[in-house]
Amino acid sequence: MLERLPAKVSVYEVGPRDGLQNEAAKLPVDARVRLIEALVASGERRMEVGSFVSPKWIPQLSETEDVVRRLGQPPGTNFSALVPNRQGLDRALASGIREVAVFLSASETHSKKNINKSIAEALATYAELVPVAVKAGLRVRGYVSVVWGCPYEGAVPIERVVEISQALTKMGIYELSLGDTIGVGTPRQTETILKALLAVLPADKLAVHLHDTRGTALANALAALGCGIATVDASVGGLGGCPYAPGASGNLATEDLVYMLHGMGIETGIDLEKLVAAGELAQTLVGRKLTGKVLQAVIGSRERNRQASCQDS
Amino acid sequence: MLERLPAKVSVYEVGPRDGLQNEAAKLPVDARVRLIEALVASGERRMEVGSFVSPKWIPQLSETEDVVRRLGQPPGTNFSALVPNRQGLDRALASGIREVAVFLSASETHSKKNINKSIAEALATYAELVPVAVKAGLRVRGYVSVVWGCPYEGAVPIERVVEISQALTKMGIYELSLGDTIGVGTPRQTETILKALLAVLPADKLAVHLHDTRGTALANALAALGCGIATVDASVGGLGGCPYAPGASGNLATEDLVYMLHGMGIETGIDLEKLVAAGELAQTLVGRKLTGKVLQAVIGSRERNRQASCQDS
Repeated sequence: MLERLPAKVSVYEVGPRDGLQNEAAKLPVDARVRLIEALVASGERRMEVGSFVSPKWIPQLSETEDVVRRLGQPPGTNFSALVPNRQGLDRALASGIREVAVFLSASETHSKKNINKSIAEALATYAELVPVAVKAGLRVRGYVSVVWGCPYEGAVPIERVVEISQALTKMGIYELSLGDTIGVGTPRQTETILKALLAVLPADKLAVHLHDTRGTALANALAALGCGIATVDASVGGLGGCPYAPGASGNLATEDLVYMLHGMGIETGIDLEKLVAAGELAQTLVGRKLTGKVLQAVIGSRERNRQASCQDS
Repeated sequence: MLERLPAKVSVYEVGPRDGLQNEAAKLPVDARVRLIEALVASGERRMEVGSFVSPKWIPQLSETEDVVRRLGQPPGTNFSALVPNRQGLDRALASGIREVAVFLSASETHSKKNINKSIAEALATYAELVPVAVKAGLRVRGYVSVVWGCPYEGAVPIERVVEISQALTKMGIYELSLGDTIGVGTPRQTETILKALLAVLPADKLAVHLHDTRGTALANALAALGCGIATVDASVGGLGGCPYAPGASGNLATEDLVYMLHGMGIETGIDLEKLVAAGELAQTLVGRKLTGKVLQAVIGSRERNRQASCQDS
């Protein structure tokens, strides 16, 4: 069954944006930079580092300009930030960042509640915005959320996801990340969704963004790999979720994803030990125990060793 | 990739034994019976209800006789208990239970630490015990633990697992459950292990018993289903682990497994809502938050609804 998985997977880190966005306390710029640098040190190269959404909406990600400036552009890194509109794009351009992301819901109700626009209005906004960004030399990534199911509407028609994805791709987006925002997906559904998209878009244009609300994120990732998808979003330590989606708990933890990929001989370019160290830093910075299982297994194992050596001495 | 999964899966519940065995506090017989009855009410039919290991070793599962007697044999149920030796088998026979399980490690060091016997000694014990049990009319299930990796020895040779499995099967075991006791497995490894076993044993003799220590249990279960395995062990709420295996955290949560299976159109005969209710009962009885993700998603969602309706009123 697993013969034809990709030999390499590109891990797209969303912890410093999608993750931190959901923490009650806003981390200072310095802490955000430290976390991102730890992730870069682990070998992670593609990463959301912030958002140019109004700080009124998401205060946790204000001062993203400062984060971007402090980070600079270490060789090989691809930092990105969300832009909701022209004002956001102008801030992104001024910051010197080279990649931005636009985001859209596959359900009308979630779209209204999340970005206060209908799907058609959001598409119209991006139809203006994306070409401007591309012309200015930015890479633009697109997110489509609630693809596997909507907290308000339930099932989401695949045809709508396909239409939105094709529209965004035509605007000039280089990659589209499909989100199971509330973590309701199961592997056969993942395969059905991806087959519908792969009928109109090549696999290298697609990524998956899976939440682990019901424990199925890694199984869904495996199904996506089986469809030839080779880019998977994940969040260090499992930081994050979606504040507008009831029932959304953490993202797929990057360490758990990398553990599974490496265990299957799939290259990521990431050093798992250093990634776990970044996860521990994330945990310290946000001041709560994160949900990542590999992270907790490593911490638990070290605790037990320490206790054992205390008993020995 | 997922075309050829089984249409039905037999879920084997291990929470009342493997789960409760790892709780600090011993639950009284009454509480254990209540939990098992709640699981039966959800439609679970096959279940470990206790252990005839000496109460000196596992005090949490003492008085299994009383549990078995109190439960009786509701129609369609298959209750089982562990038996380590002749004394345990005699207790099982006296209790009236109709199924027992024997357990064995695939690594010498784990075997010594877990049951204080070498693999050869354990096999010799069971070579006497299993035929006696079968002759007495009991069904006998076998467990092989640390198949995916040993906390003391690391990698475990597949040939040894195959040998042990064949030996147990020859003794008269009706089903063999292969354990990833410390939750180190990844899906390709699962496929490799199962292919080696399926070369010598039919799929309907095999089950998988997966731990979620590194988040990979459901992905491994999916890989096992892809190999034609149609029996999966799981533990309500994710109760359990292995006290003798450092780094072992909870079992695969039954609700998460059932959620994934039903989402893929695979029948289990289980009512997920009632199973979650049993998970909540388990949580109340052991007095700590369990790790099952579906369980926590349901509880979290209800909490939010309650808060919302308080605000409305």
